[in-house]
Amino acid sequence: MLKNKITTIAFDADDTLWRNEEIFMQAQSHFIDMLTGYHDKAYIVSHLEKVQIRNISIFGYGVKGFTLSMIETAIELTEGRIQGHEIHSIIELSKAMLATPITLLPNVKETLQSLKKDYQLMAITKGDLLDQEGKFARSEIAHFFDYIEIVSEKKPDTYANLLHQYQINTDEFLMLGNSLKSDILPVLDIGAMAIHIPYHSTWVHEQVTAEELQKYPSIVEFSNISDVLPWLKASAKLP
Amino acid sequence: MLKNKITTIAFDADDTLWRNEEIFMQAQSHFIDMLTGYHDKAYIVSHLEKVQIRNISIFGYGVKGFTLSMIETAIELTEGRIQGHEIHSIIELSKAMLATPITLLPNVKETLQSLKKDYQLMAITKGDLLDQEGKFARSEIAHFFDYIEIVSEKKPDTYANLLHQYQINTDEFLMLGNSLKSDILPVLDIGAMAIHIPYHSTWVHEQVTAEELQKYPSIVEFSNISDVLPWLKASAKLP
Repeated sequence: MLKNKITTIAFDADDTLWRNEEIFMQAQSHFIDMLTGYHDKAYIVSHLEKVQIRNISIFGYGVKGFTLSMIETAIELTEGRIQGHEIHSIIELSKAMLATPITLLPNVKETLQSLKKDYQLMAITKGDLLDQEGKFARSEIAHFFDYIEIVSEKKPDTYANLLHQYQINTDEFLMLGNSLKSDILPVLDIGAMAIHIPYHSTWVHEQVTAEELQKYPSIVEFSNISDVLPWLKASAKLP
Repeated sequence: MLKNKITTIAFDADDTLWRNEEIFMQAQSHFIDMLTGYHDKAYIVSHLEKVQIRNISIFGYGVKGFTLSMIETAIELTEGRIQGHEIHSIIELSKAMLATPITLLPNVKETLQSLKKDYQLMAITKGDLLDQEGKFARSEIAHFFDYIEIVSEKKPDTYANLLHQYQINTDEFLMLGNSLKSDILPVLDIGAMAIHIPYHSTWVHEQVTAEELQKYPSIVEFSNISDVLPWLKASAKLP
């Protein structure tokens, strides 16, 4: 490890700053209950995943695309026999998802507060524009961030463009997030630093294979966001 | 009119740079055909508008929210009797909308090309992130813009924040767009300049009342985007 020159720390939002995957899991569980008269649970889940992945390049990430995929799945799995009132309850599910209160993850607020003094802070999140903005507005932590960027995809180019836009050198940038695929690997790919903070569950679309991971010799992992504080202190003191 | 100090010209995208309202109108027309067995056309249109306006703060602007509103309307207007395959065709409609080729409006390319030499150019558009990005990518005019901003709403604050972010003074900024409500009035509200380029049809949600308009003594209007070129020349020559 070299002495760090970090000036900017960027955070993923969903499942890094606040709970999100549970909201999708809960909606999905209601959705499964609705269709158990037609198919078994495992088949419903696997078909929904298939439809979601098929639709991701068209609808993007977020609640609205997820909802359209749930509706499409329900129609396909029932061969069109799904009832109007059942589809209506899927739309109601999506509105409930969009209105779910924000639950910050442990130590998030304290960690941001502490970092704020010495670093430029960014949030980089993907999903629906209005939904992500609404979550930041309700989170009570938006004021800690110098910049909040909502993007449609997290590819190496996405990060390279943001660093260029904000005139940040790659060796001055650290990204923290729960998704290896979106938050860690593309940042390592452009030669910047990224540390993984795993969340207890990861959506299938965000999973990476062991083979992909082999290309990256070492990935640093924190069990909690607050681990970044002693890590920064230690790596700043290096020769 | 005072001599202008304009350094940055910003453009709305949908119905200012390329055709968009027709895509929604065409989808809506298919939707109406689907429901004419249940209700008359005027009632379907007015109910769809009601649902859309009710949902705008939840789903935002764009194709995905429009689609969810169409589905909700179809279920409500048929008291749940709508068939699965009909709802499926609404989802197919949305995918066709998202894949519609871009049709630039007359003189757009030439005007941008000509302005590019002397001005910083921006695009400011609202809607779904992925959809708007895709349209710029397919438009073949994205390279003319120094900055492309996709926002969830166009309020005075939206413009004030963008001007602050890019360090543009209000008297250096000119906005061009087809929506009085989104592109013109909020820009005039922050003391910057905006010129209206009406499109032949305006979505009901974007319409403003005569009463609102009375607060604005004079609104400049162009019949075509290329009118900006002689206008800039004339106002730059003023004493």
